[in-house]
Amino acid sequence: MPSLPSTIAELVDAVEPVDPDAAARAEARHAELAKPPGSLGRLEAVGVQLAAVASRCPPPVPRSPVVVVAAADHGVHARGVTPWPQHITTRMVATMCAGQAAVNAVAATVGADLVVVDVGCVDPPPDDRLLRSRRVRAGTADLSTRPAMSRGEAAQAVSVGAAIAVELMDVGADLLVTGDMGIANTTASACLIAACTGRPAGAVTGRGAGTDGHVPSHKIEVVARALALHRPDPDDPLGVLASLGGLEHAALVGLLLAAAARRVPVVLDGVITNAAALLAAQLCPPLSGHLIASHRSPEPGAQIALDALGLAPLLDLGLRLGEGTGGLLAVPLLQAAARALTDIARITDL
Amino acid sequence: MPSLPSTIAELVDAVEPVDPDAAARAEARHAELAKPPGSLGRLEAVGVQLAAVASRCPPPVPRSPVVVVAAADHGVHARGVTPWPQHITTRMVATMCAGQAAVNAVAATVGADLVVVDVGCVDPPPDDRLLRSRRVRAGTADLSTRPAMSRGEAAQAVSVGAAIAVELMDVGADLLVTGDMGIANTTASACLIAACTGRPAGAVTGRGAGTDGHVPSHKIEVVARALALHRPDPDDPLGVLASLGGLEHAALVGLLLAAAARRVPVVLDGVITNAAALLAAQLCPPLSGHLIASHRSPEPGAQIALDALGLAPLLDLGLRLGEGTGGLLAVPLLQAAARALTDIARITDL
Repeated sequence: MPSLPSTIAELVDAVEPVDPDAAARAEARHAELAKPPGSLGRLEAVGVQLAAVASRCPPPVPRSPVVVVAAADHGVHARGVTPWPQHITTRMVATMCAGQAAVNAVAATVGADLVVVDVGCVDPPPDDRLLRSRRVRAGTADLSTRPAMSRGEAAQAVSVGAAIAVELMDVGADLLVTGDMGIANTTASACLIAACTGRPAGAVTGRGAGTDGHVPSHKIEVVARALALHRPDPDDPLGVLASLGGLEHAALVGLLLAAAARRVPVVLDGVITNAAALLAAQLCPPLSGHLIASHRSPEPGAQIALDALGLAPLLDLGLRLGEGTGGLLAVPLLQAAARALTDIARITDL
Repeated sequence: MPSLPSTIAELVDAVEPVDPDAAARAEARHAELAKPPGSLGRLEAVGVQLAAVASRCPPPVPRSPVVVVAAADHGVHARGVTPWPQHITTRMVATMCAGQAAVNAVAATVGADLVVVDVGCVDPPPDDRLLRSRRVRAGTADLSTRPAMSRGEAAQAVSVGAAIAVELMDVGADLLVTGDMGIANTTASACLIAACTGRPAGAVTGRGAGTDGHVPSHKIEVVARALALHRPDPDDPLGVLASLGGLEHAALVGLLLAAAARRVPVVLDGVITNAAALLAAQLCPPLSGHLIASHRSPEPGAQIALDALGLAPLLDLGLRLGEGTGGLLAVPLLQAAARALTDIARITDL
């Protein structure tokens, strides 16, 4: 692997594997509780994972979840890979800040705070208390004809995401949920997933959120052309990110690493966050044990990415919106999984 | 259908079909919101159903959910259909009242209140502010050798469940979640599902919550013997309930009908509540449109019951605990579905 900028190398080094002893203690505790063994199904596995992530049993019950929506634009939009105009990215950032997007409805339901990070929208969104302006550049270049960004820009965007995560954890966030906003970002996600797994463009490319049921055939061609142009090397994750990724993917990579380094659980959303997680785990293999897959996106690349990460999603609701909506819907499942290990009596205490 | 006691006939008559006009308005509203059409997947269908149930668009956001755990014992326990001793029913009722059962952990997570109804435990549980003592009899008779209860007792238990629902809705409950506690009640559930669907004992009988992975072969025999003995007539649902059901099934039938009559949405949990819902829909076919299936229980009868009801569960987490735990986990999904129709801006308003 080519040497990494020191900021990223330090992040990667700070992530330890999850704790198998805490996991074993959680499994043993589950067997003692006042319920039939195994009867809470996947919730028991989540509780065990939360213990392993926190290196504590019972694990802390997450009480202050925050969803971080990383927003940026994509030069590949010029290739007509989506019917949505590019300015929708900034429009939706403003809608989120106004409390009127889907992510707001779901965040309010589960009691999560929301932060939107502008890592590089083409049009700067208006100032807002929910917005962090951390613009690395005004959208990426067209990844089908040149690198989306420089290695330095990619590293800078990774640092942005890590710094936001640290800032939020410093003021009490105990569960981070990943979100994204960026018109055309399913195209970049498909490129990243293909680059990390070796799967062909046709296997990883989906219709995205904006089309009527068919994958635009030229979208697959754009992904295939980009892969042929850049010949991405999965052993150079930062190079893959720079040539084929989005600024929001890079920021999410930083957020995932920073959360794992602090042993704060972090929830993936749909295909964009799955792609970022796959890239982050290429940089830092122990990361995958820290990640919770919230839902199964219908985008084909999402399942490929989750399989490569060894993650099984909790929900399968046909969500294809992004913004962190699916990730947020998993928050009560995590809270219930942790509370089960805390609140349920032991059979021997009845 | 044999004539029904007037209390049940009035309940059945009070349930109107869900409102297709409100459903159509919710579908139209979804198409106008600031998100790609259909991108919230199953959540959109839930929002449409909530509008249809409430006959209002947008539907009210449920803010005061209550889980009702109907508890009772089963004479068929004597046939060795479960490894759990019968007194566990009362023990677990007391554990719930003490706030130390799995249902408490999940209810606290989603902000739901809990009420436990003793419809007929063999040992009366101790008084508690969470307990409603509405004992119809001290457990059912052994359904494999005689009717589990009389028609009058079944009707009385239905009335108990309906009265509890009315009492809770009168003080503000705007979403009811069904729960159950009753050692051996998967056996009675299998009998009810077989009786209502005509499926054989081997198809509907599962291992229940207490065994280690195999269905006890004599459990299937007990169900088959009971079906052969009573020759249940699905056109006589009260007769089916009396001969093969549990007191908690009967109470849940009443709760479902009373909620639907008030247009308050009601969430099913696992196989016991699925069986009660199937029976209630035999009494009152328009009921099924009011019901929300929370999760897919691994019990084979659960899927058969949900298929017969035309319901698709939201979650598939391998839960086989009962108590209402799965139903409670669906509460945030319903709240998010309703909030989406309320909180998200219309595209034309951006």
